[in-house]
Amino acid sequence: MFEQIQRLSIIGVGLIGGSLAKALRAKGGVGEIVGCSRREEHLQQAVDLGVIDRYTTDPIQAVAGADVVVVAVPLGSVEALFAAIAPTLAENTLITDVGSAKTGVVEAARRQLGVHCSRFVPGHPIAGAEKSGVSAARDDLFLGRRVIVTPVAETDAQALTRISRMWQLTGAEVVAMDMEHHDRVLAATSHLPHLLAYTLVDQLANMQTHDEIFRFAAGGFRDFTRIASSDPVMWRDICVSNREAILEMLKAFETHLSGLRQALEAQDAAALQSLFSAAKQARDAYAQASGE
Amino acid sequence: MFEQIQRLSIIGVGLIGGSLAKALRAKGGVGEIVGCSRREEHLQQAVDLGVIDRYTTDPIQAVAGADVVVVAVPLGSVEALFAAIAPTLAENTLITDVGSAKTGVVEAARRQLGVHCSRFVPGHPIAGAEKSGVSAARDDLFLGRRVIVTPVAETDAQALTRISRMWQLTGAEVVAMDMEHHDRVLAATSHLPHLLAYTLVDQLANMQTHDEIFRFAAGGFRDFTRIASSDPVMWRDICVSNREAILEMLKAFETHLSGLRQALEAQDAAALQSLFSAAKQARDAYAQASGE
Repeated sequence: MFEQIQRLSIIGVGLIGGSLAKALRAKGGVGEIVGCSRREEHLQQAVDLGVIDRYTTDPIQAVAGADVVVVAVPLGSVEALFAAIAPTLAENTLITDVGSAKTGVVEAARRQLGVHCSRFVPGHPIAGAEKSGVSAARDDLFLGRRVIVTPVAETDAQALTRISRMWQLTGAEVVAMDMEHHDRVLAATSHLPHLLAYTLVDQLANMQTHDEIFRFAAGGFRDFTRIASSDPVMWRDICVSNREAILEMLKAFETHLSGLRQALEAQDAAALQSLFSAAKQARDAYAQASGE
Repeated sequence: MFEQIQRLSIIGVGLIGGSLAKALRAKGGVGEIVGCSRREEHLQQAVDLGVIDRYTTDPIQAVAGADVVVVAVPLGSVEALFAAIAPTLAENTLITDVGSAKTGVVEAARRQLGVHCSRFVPGHPIAGAEKSGVSAARDDLFLGRRVIVTPVAETDAQALTRISRMWQLTGAEVVAMDMEHHDRVLAATSHLPHLLAYTLVDQLANMQTHDEIFRFAAGGFRDFTRIASSDPVMWRDICVSNREAILEMLKAFETHLSGLRQALEAQDAAALQSLFSAAKQARDAYAQASGE
């Protein structure tokens, strides 16, 4: 049984924050939802869509009297937000976030949240889309998805339990993970693929015959490059925040790709087939395991 | 009005050859369809599925009396196939192929087909899937898709027209293109993305924690890596056949990716955002143009 959140404060009412608000509302898990963002027109839109009850552009007002504060701003804005709300946070307010990289967020929390750090539960819902903004929010965005929480030494056990239950109420499976491990796993499966897709599309867009090139692209290209439509600011922030882990994966990729190029230069058909076969086997196993 | 093909010979009855057979049959564009492959069980399956009328494992028998021969074998087998059928080809038989790289096929045709080379029309339907085999064949696989033909100096105009009309009957749009240009365009939009997807999946599969890594992969990863389930032999052959153009694109990609890595190492957030924004703009324009 989930004890209702009397007042939920969502800082950053975009796809993720908005979908969480909708999901909790649909399940009766929340009383009042207060939204906070920089741009008033987005907040008014969120009210019009019934995603939030009321709004303020002032983070201090937004967190006043909140049971739970969800920080869903771009990673580059998290530390300033922590700094802004820390002085007025109530002693019973839980804080969580939804950032795609955790180590940087935890370091920012330690620097800025002071005594409130024990009630900060770092979180990351593995959901989202190329779409962004509150108009894309859906109450089933987290249904059947995983939410990773990365508690650290100072994290309060009760805070962790309550935030985990909040996510479970949306239909998500909550998994706890070491934060450095989270950052490496996400660098491999999400951050690096985004960088590769952005790089490829940018390369083709800069070719002389780019109109024709895109014209003859097939379904495989569409799927492969879809993530290059993701929000540039969000991905800039992820890169900066998770720089070390991304660089590690990126360098490993460059080494692998260089090996493939050398096999191609050497016309080593057997090496090419062997690499492709191993990859196909792994991808097919993943498809089966994930019920694709 | 399409003049019916009395006898169509499909050499290589897989996804593409099988789908062409089904599409032409559905439109009444063909009388008898003869299938030829190396493995008899695949051919029997094609008969059982109603894709072909009869079969032989002997290419010479397969092309006997055929109006049109469609060569749909892996690129690495095309030249040997040309060599096998050339001595017995009738003077009115048209030959076409479906290979994903054209220069190598044309060179093989020039070496092997002799006087029949004028009736060889190089073709490439931009359709397909990670799936392969005749069981995946569909009569609407080419509907609304593009088929590129790359006629060369010696190509007979009537042969080109007839093969083009054959593809149009399947619902495809037929576009003529210079063969070297075709090979560069496809290297950029299809061959390079396949190599990147194969490389990434292979890299992750070789990591110690690969089970967990795949477990926390999200939808973006699924889309990005779907093409890594493609047939390894087919892609080995494409790499060997279109080696020069692929290497050109691959080297350009390595340069671009190295630039991105340097921006990340330098924590140059502005450069990252600029690259991501340019890529998103190009990808969004492509999505709009392609009606995605």
